[in-house]
Amino acid sequence: MEKIKVISPATSANLGPGYDIFGLALSEPYDTITLSRSGGGISISVKGEGANKIPTDVDKNTAGVVVREIIKDFNIKEGVKIEIEKGIRPGSGLGSSAASSAGAAFAMNELFNLNLSKLELVKYASLGESISAGFPHADNVAPAIYGGFTMVVNYNPLEVLHIPVDFEVVVALPDIEVSTKKAREILPDSISLRSMVNNVGKACGMIYSLFKKDVELFGRCMMGDSVVEPYRSQLIPGYLEVKEKIKDLVYGITISGSGPGVIIIPKEGKISRIKEVLDEVWACPVYHTKVGTGIQILERN
Amino acid sequence: MEKIKVISPATSANLGPGYDIFGLALSEPYDTITLSRSGGGISISVKGEGANKIPTDVDKNTAGVVVREIIKDFNIKEGVKIEIEKGIRPGSGLGSSAASSAGAAFAMNELFNLNLSKLELVKYASLGESISAGFPHADNVAPAIYGGFTMVVNYNPLEVLHIPVDFEVVVALPDIEVSTKKAREILPDSISLRSMVNNVGKACGMIYSLFKKDVELFGRCMMGDSVVEPYRSQLIPGYLEVKEKIKDLVYGITISGSGPGVIIIPKEGKISRIKEVLDEVWACPVYHTKVGTGIQILERN
Repeated sequence: MEKIKVISPATSANLGPGYDIFGLALSEPYDTITLSRSGGGISISVKGEGANKIPTDVDKNTAGVVVREIIKDFNIKEGVKIEIEKGIRPGSGLGSSAASSAGAAFAMNELFNLNLSKLELVKYASLGESISAGFPHADNVAPAIYGGFTMVVNYNPLEVLHIPVDFEVVVALPDIEVSTKKAREILPDSISLRSMVNNVGKACGMIYSLFKKDVELFGRCMMGDSVVEPYRSQLIPGYLEVKEKIKDLVYGITISGSGPGVIIIPKEGKISRIKEVLDEVWACPVYHTKVGTGIQILERN
Repeated sequence: MEKIKVISPATSANLGPGYDIFGLALSEPYDTITLSRSGGGISISVKGEGANKIPTDVDKNTAGVVVREIIKDFNIKEGVKIEIEKGIRPGSGLGSSAASSAGAAFAMNELFNLNLSKLELVKYASLGESISAGFPHADNVAPAIYGGFTMVVNYNPLEVLHIPVDFEVVVALPDIEVSTKKAREILPDSISLRSMVNNVGKACGMIYSLFKKDVELFGRCMMGDSVVEPYRSQLIPGYLEVKEKIKDLVYGITISGSGPGVIIIPKEGKISRIKEVLDEVWACPVYHTKVGTGIQILERN
């Protein structure tokens, strides 16, 4: 194989009480990543949504770092040309950097026939996340690679649990800038034992609901976060207004990742009314999508 | 029906990261509770394990309170004679008071044909828990009534999720007194956000493991509690020694409820060696039992 083109989807991490653990693959939006064997070295080009904000230096680009590490570890003698077409706006809370790093890991595995497991792909992809977040977070790269719903229950050794699921979601992407750094800093260092008990219960309710295919319970528990959402909602003007106005139209709504993206689990037949509210408050891009199956190969030759 | 006799089992609450939420019904030990219609008023007699520590005043006895409340709410004109034979030592961390209150609620429902749902029985039984703990905790009464594994994900309104499961457990009951009050007071009021993330992940791993019938994962996650067990283990001399000595023989070990009882998920074929260690350190009662199906009717006439 000389060249491979994959689509790597947006992902929604946290999902309320699953802060830093849960992640959900979406069908849309997505990045398109093309890797080609080349004479030598790594080259990166980026176009599409917010491309001007993304560094193309190998050591600063999340896909570049992943490709560099795999080339090193597997002693690959060729170079790789990376072409990224961003469909996911950077800084959206929809795993934009994770889509590129996960897509790069997945595509390298195919291009050089490395036979890496999904867990190993998550490990490599999370190296890309290190450079954007300072820690090899896996909560976005895991669902991009596994599809469906994932939870990262352990680092060192990395352990990812996967549940294939299938339901509709609506994602809104208000035109607000929220830095991941600020979104972390706004959270308290310590919380009450009562809040922990609440969040453990609600998060466990979500896992139960996925096995029982009970989307109502999933959404309700997702909204039960008493630790993260109350703080982060302060960074997203209009969020509480939207939440109040659509409460009867949805099973659940919460902030996607560190925001400003918002993930909504709609009730049946309520999509158009939800869109009206979102348009009224934010007049922003809205994706009516569903849980996705993760990275897909588009072309190889 | 004039008389009903039920067995009401021990239960193990918390299970590590599921503090105040998770509960597991055991097959042994158990209380035997007999309710009979009587001319008027409520009478209580208690015999068996630690009977001398249990008040027989209706308003101070967990079963008495449950019977009193049901009589009041359903406007029952008869009296009830309550005979309790304790098989579960009070103050053991094995839901001794919960067994009596849950057994009383269950038996009242049968005796007077009240058609109460399991959730309603849990509500009544938790009223009994109020008098021993000051709050209508449902984490022990829920598994006694539902059997298997339960999680109390919400109070007001009460919401119990149930997973039927089936695996072996070993319970040790060292001869140590741990007051529930002291066991609560030793816990910190606040914890780090990192600790919460850890416990949410491990608790969710346990739910996942139950649906996947993966007892190894269940035990490993159960041992991942970084919030409660490190404090409560200080109240149980010998606990850390036992834990270290049996680590290769078990999938998991943790404190049952507020202790001193200890719950162990044994590896296959390791029971006798586990018992040797327990005998060496504590020389205490040990139950080799399994997850149970909750309260059972023994006789009715």
